[in-house]
Amino acid sequence: MSITAKEFPYNTGIVSRKAYDDHIALYKGYIEKTNEVTEVLTTQPEWGTSNATASHYRGWKKGETYAINGVILHELYFQSLGNRAGPAGTKVENMLNRYFGGTDNWKKDFIACATAARGWCILVYEQRTATFRNIVLDTHEDGNIASAYPVIVLDMYEHAYFIDYGTDKVAYINRFISNISWEIIEKRIGIII
Amino acid sequence: MSITAKEFPYNTGIVSRKAYDDHIALYKGYIEKTNEVTEVLTTQPEWGTSNATASHYRGWKKGETYAINGVILHELYFQSLGNRAGPAGTKVENMLNRYFGGTDNWKKDFIACATAARGWCILVYEQRTATFRNIVLDTHEDGNIASAYPVIVLDMYEHAYFIDYGTDKVAYINRFISNISWEIIEKRIGIII
Amino acid sequence: MSITAKEFPYNTGIVSRKAYDDHIALYKGYIEKTNEVTEVLTTQPEWGTSNATASHYRGWKKGETYAINGVILHELYFQSLGNRAGPAGTKVENMLNRYFGGTDNWKKDFIACATAARGWCILVYEQRTATFRNIVLDTHEDGNIASAYPVIVLDMYEHAYFIDYGTDKVAYINRFISNISWEIIEKRIGIII
Amino acid sequence: MSITAKEFPYNTGIVSRKAYDDHIALYKGYIEKTNEVTEVLTTQPEWGTSNATASHYRGWKKGETYAINGVILHELYFQSLGNRAGPAGTKVENMLNRYFGGTDNWKKDFIACATAARGWCILVYEQRTATFRNIVLDTHEDGNIASAYPVIVLDMYEHAYFIDYGTDKVAYINRFISNISWEIIEKRIGIII
Repeated sequence: MSITAKEFPYNTGIVSRKAYDDHIALYKGYIEKTNEVTEVLTTQPEWGTSNATASHYRGWKKGETYAINGVILHELYFQSLGNRAGPAGTKVENMLNRYFGGTDNWKKDFIACATAARGWCILVYEQRTATFRNIVLDTHEDGNIASAYPVIVLDMYEHAYFIDYGTDKVAYINRFISNISWEIIEKRIGIII
Repeated sequence: MSITAKEFPYNTGIVSRKAYDDHIALYKGYIEKTNEVTEVLTTQPEWGTSNATASHYRGWKKGETYAINGVILHELYFQSLGNRAGPAGTKVENMLNRYFGGTDNWKKDFIACATAARGWCILVYEQRTATFRNIVLDTHEDGNIASAYPVIVLDMYEHAYFIDYGTDKVAYINRFISNISWEIIEKRIGIII
Repeated sequence: MSITAKEFPYNTGIVSRKAYDDHIALYKGYIEKTNEVTEVLTTQPEWGTSNATASHYRGWKKGETYAINGVILHELYFQSLGNRAGPAGTKVENMLNRYFGGTDNWKKDFIACATAARGWCILVYEQRTATFRNIVLDTHEDGNIASAYPVIVLDMYEHAYFIDYGTDKVAYINRFISNISWEIIEKRIGIII
Repeated sequence: MSITAKEFPYNTGIVSRKAYDDHIALYKGYIEKTNEVTEVLTTQPEWGTSNATASHYRGWKKGETYAINGVILHELYFQSLGNRAGPAGTKVENMLNRYFGGTDNWKKDFIACATAARGWCILVYEQRTATFRNIVLDTHEDGNIASAYPVIVLDMYEHAYFIDYGTDKVAYINRFISNISWEIIEKRIGIII
């Protein structure tokens, strides 16, 4: 039941080659950890000593959600890096108009959201309120909404931008927005609406 | 775009009437907060001062994911309280056999998982690894997996059991398991497999 | 190097006997966990596999700070439960005047702070800014300030009040304030100023 | 009551000039935020709407402990960067012998601890157990122990090392250890023992 890393060839539009390779290395680390955690919890769960303050079971369980989210979010991020910018598709445009009052307003909110984030900034479709929202994650696993569907995923961990942008988060965020592969985003939206 | 609370009539199978009513009151608080947060972020986003250490925008954004998860998880929990116990349905049984090695093993893992949790214990379908897993949440928003689908949702916040069970978490967890509405769980599974 | 629990005889001023005993049981659990975690990390540190996503070492290390804080904060809380109310001492009064603009303002801020807290509300002396401040902790270990000295410590975990006060946090907070042993607080302040 | 940044001239022993300057810029951001948060909470506390899910008061209070810790821990870190390596002083050596079984064992534990950390690795004196321990912080404010006294403070945020070391955490940790100003550490220990 182990998973394997997907390939994401170097994309010139976001960071330097060295920074990109380091980022991919971190992503592959989450793949390996997901497999290791799954193995440990399957073969040595040590159910009998589970405890909410500290225990073998709890330690690995906390790592499980962290590692799996590390895999999922990095894949959604790398997959959407574009250099095929072009305009957003019709479904995306309609969605941004309806839920954010237009592309410009969405951008302003997304930039503010990414600036506020310590981990990830994600445009999600949230099922309970039936709305699209930009949300803040402070770690891979702190801030996700149950059942929400991630559409645009921006890595705001310092490893994602520090080598090339230093403390200039806004330059990185703008660079990401102007390089999104809208083709991919249109496909993701297509599953929802 | 505001949401309204669903009705969950008193269920005699899990906690006393007073404890149940208090719990419903907390749930309704998350409904109200979801609406308030949405209103604040829509009408006064104050995008220009957003910051990852402290800012108006960040403070409310962090409350947004917390409140919405508080709504979603409580609804899934209350909805599955049963008193119509009976045996699990075929799809559930097949799933527990395939992913946990049988109902008994699943129960052992679920009890250990709930014992380790500070917030919620949830059986989810996780799309990237294409597996069902029991996961630990430490708060409404710490531990959710992006795109995972919650199937069995157990509230392990102290407000859920402390009035009736005090420090005896295991009694509460067992009581929950023996009172799950398997009919509801079968329906939830039906959407996935 | 193991630690032992201190005795805190039942105090009639804050919660019912059952709730008090449950609370003491939780406190003793942190004593035991502190000793267990220390033992595990001393005898089986498994340094070589340490990792920031998931590892044996990390799991127990996270439990170490959680358990020790659980011990320290509960002891400071139980020790200050009074029933010997009376007026605050001179040093306390001077401090509240100087840093909060008087006792009434401090109370308003402390009540707001406790209402905002998911774990603890603490009046601390903070050395870097050389000020007394009320601070919010969301868990035993989330919110403490390095080198800060705790003076008035209020447990806002649901286990502290839910049995007797249900969702009425403010009643519990007011009850605590009116039952603080100011004699103890005066001694704590005496170490600082 | 505002605070001002301390000066930490470039230290050649740990990271490149650009990385150092970026790090100092982040530190100064925490100074400014500490002052801003203090100002907001003093002049517009909005006590009446305080709430533990989301509120103006809560948002800023959470930023307060984060910003102040950001100031304190960065100052302790920068202050201890050495290039005056030399051997550890007598008090430090005695402490490492007594609480860790010697300098080599302490190093092994400190490296494992830093490797496990997402925010900071700190050798603290912990008063309740009356021991020195290496502890893990996942953010500026997640992992501190109430009343513990920080002695050796290593920044493990990605901003501290990513530009020069990329994913090679261990090289950075070893570099830090071999460049600690033991003179400073001896002074810090002198306050305790």
